[in-house]
Amino acid sequence: MALADLSAEELAAFMTAQKSAYNDLKARGLKLDLTRGKPSAQQLDLSNDLLKLPTTHIAADGTDTRNYGGLHGLTEIREIFAELLGVNVDQIVAQGNSSLTLMQQVLVDCLLHGAVDSERPWVAEEKIKFICPVPGYDRHFSLLNSFGIEMITVPMHADGPDADKIAELVKDDASIKGMWVVPTYANPTGDTVSQEVAAKLVAMPTAAPDFKIFWDNAYALHHLTDVETKSVDVISLAASSGNPHRPILFASTSKVTFAGAGVAFLAASTENIGWYLGHLGMSSIGPDKVNHLRHAQFFKDADGVRAHMRKHAEIIAPKFAAVERILTERLAEHDIAQWTKPLGGYFVNLDVLPGTATRVVELAKEAGIALTPAGASFPLGQDPHDENIRLAPTMPPLEEVEVAMDGVATCALLAAGEYLAKS
Amino acid sequence: MALADLSAEELAAFMTAQKSAYNDLKARGLKLDLTRGKPSAQQLDLSNDLLKLPTTHIAADGTDTRNYGGLHGLTEIREIFAELLGVNVDQIVAQGNSSLTLMQQVLVDCLLHGAVDSERPWVAEEKIKFICPVPGYDRHFSLLNSFGIEMITVPMHADGPDADKIAELVKDDASIKGMWVVPTYANPTGDTVSQEVAAKLVAMPTAAPDFKIFWDNAYALHHLTDVETKSVDVISLAASSGNPHRPILFASTSKVTFAGAGVAFLAASTENIGWYLGHLGMSSIGPDKVNHLRHAQFFKDADGVRAHMRKHAEIIAPKFAAVERILTERLAEHDIAQWTKPLGGYFVNLDVLPGTATRVVELAKEAGIALTPAGASFPLGQDPHDENIRLAPTMPPLEEVEVAMDGVATCALLAAGEYLAKS
Repeated sequence: MALADLSAEELAAFMTAQKSAYNDLKARGLKLDLTRGKPSAQQLDLSNDLLKLPTTHIAADGTDTRNYGGLHGLTEIREIFAELLGVNVDQIVAQGNSSLTLMQQVLVDCLLHGAVDSERPWVAEEKIKFICPVPGYDRHFSLLNSFGIEMITVPMHADGPDADKIAELVKDDASIKGMWVVPTYANPTGDTVSQEVAAKLVAMPTAAPDFKIFWDNAYALHHLTDVETKSVDVISLAASSGNPHRPILFASTSKVTFAGAGVAFLAASTENIGWYLGHLGMSSIGPDKVNHLRHAQFFKDADGVRAHMRKHAEIIAPKFAAVERILTERLAEHDIAQWTKPLGGYFVNLDVLPGTATRVVELAKEAGIALTPAGASFPLGQDPHDENIRLAPTMPPLEEVEVAMDGVATCALLAAGEYLAKS
Repeated sequence: MALADLSAEELAAFMTAQKSAYNDLKARGLKLDLTRGKPSAQQLDLSNDLLKLPTTHIAADGTDTRNYGGLHGLTEIREIFAELLGVNVDQIVAQGNSSLTLMQQVLVDCLLHGAVDSERPWVAEEKIKFICPVPGYDRHFSLLNSFGIEMITVPMHADGPDADKIAELVKDDASIKGMWVVPTYANPTGDTVSQEVAAKLVAMPTAAPDFKIFWDNAYALHHLTDVETKSVDVISLAASSGNPHRPILFASTSKVTFAGAGVAFLAASTENIGWYLGHLGMSSIGPDKVNHLRHAQFFKDADGVRAHMRKHAEIIAPKFAAVERILTERLAEHDIAQWTKPLGGYFVNLDVLPGTATRVVELAKEAGIALTPAGASFPLGQDPHDENIRLAPTMPPLEEVEVAMDGVATCALLAAGEYLAKS
């Protein structure tokens, strides 16, 4: 029965039961962590052969990977990920261990130099704004905020960000210079941008001539089921829409091989690639090509990556299934929460009773279960409804995920009961 | 006999001989390269054990180096280089494969956010200038120029940049925000900053409250002889002079292990380190700690690095000796050039007859010997006397260095003869 439909007496009995359950939970002295989207040690183990690679330092084209040079990254690793990301090899560069770093570089280049289609460096503009689909990735928002860029939120739907709302915003406001989106298995909702939504985003008229879509395809390959959701080929789509320089695609092997020692990729129009490398060449004599060769030898080819990702799914899919099972068992009948059932990615988006997310996270913390701070998936950490909680089940062992989720359910019920009792 | 003292007849005979020698040189169809300070394959081979390391992914403190985190870099590699660079462990961070990238990051942070002691972000200043000792490192100048920062040159002497001239420049001009210097075995002169010069630089009053010294100690450990020149402890010196946040030290293993796959370091006051990491944390979840552990295991300790550097010296010292021997044999008697006899680093600085450097490089190119473009060691590539040529003898095998240097001597003599014949 929905919690909101209970009589005062029933609610009081419910609260007594939940308080008792919560006290039992606290008494267990747990120390569990569902905060960050990190791979587990078991997942990292899948790539341990990397530690003994490469077996040679000479690349296929004769390059001595140990020395300086090769700003665009090693050809063999670019070829593998060009195929996986559906771009041409000359439209992709391979760099260091973090795609977030590449996003920051592009943003800094836009600020200090201007994009290929900018009239002036962005710092010369009076104001700069970005569109941020919410809920979204907290590090995107922190980065924008660090540069004083104003963030305008739009809703993230099952087929991607609200393209009509975005089109309406950007058509007259030249200070809106770009937007971020995680197109496949989005952080945290797991939603994937449809071909139709992507087509609108790359084709819509923008007052800013240099509007950029930061297409952060972090989870392009991270399927949880046999459904291998295809990412939209946004670069070709933008080119055929007459806005070839609008999207810049980012990806990495952070959640494929080693989170801290992988390879990051940037893909875009050849003009954008030339622009990026032109600025990059001022501060780099080339990325770690030994690590590129290490990864190329490890994967062998694109199918090698696909097979590798299925091993990840075998490890983490049961954790996502546990989240789904426990939330359904514990919460469904009370009608106080909704949550996503992602087909890929790293997160489950849990919306608890509006007004209670902060309290749920607080209760969980007191019981030894660390959750991402409430509101983290919104710019400046401000969830207007205080309902959103991002669950990250990949890192802890399955048994801990189960215990933690049961605890989270108890906290969500207790917080909902408290809230309804007060109102 | 000095070329300038020859009679017209003697000069004509000299020219005939040189032209003949040059034609013989061209006829050999050489393809030699003395352009960049790259380690040779033989030097890179010294570090090939890195390709099989690390033997574990767990660091001394229990960190799983494969996962995210640890923004300041792995403790064991920081400890080794803290000792070698003479700084405290909490004053040094270990990052990716390029110290040039760290310099650019610091510059970008100053531009967009301001330094710890800035009144405002540098982009908010009407004009920014940097002091550049010349001859110096071309990539420092390109980076400054890419941000539109004006470069003021001062002479580089045997004991470092002209500190009195710098003090005079910075005391009233608040737009001078910093300077670059390669303090040990400088690029390209091989000179080393003395304690006295360093003391002046860190203590001098500056109109800008946030004046920064980019102390690029790229060759701190790169001795060519048994004389292990000690670098000034610039961070302590600046602190005791009341300007703790003025110097920022950069170093890397690029010319210690693999040029393209090493580890870069930044050292500074703890406040500067906090400032740097604060901004870095917006764009990185941590550097490649596996590569840090790989290097720490390879070196074992600071003495391991010192022993490793002696192996480098064994390989490259004969190349520097060949440069010195051939230049002396071929040029000394004609009094048309001066050159350095570095005790460390990667370069020999050759000053040919003023007005002929461009011609020497051109003649060499036509004979199949690639030299760094004349003027490269000056901002905007403009050597006011057209006399400076940077020689980089580390990369080619010894035999090629000998052949190339003999060719360079021929070109220098021919160009000098042409110049004197015209004047």
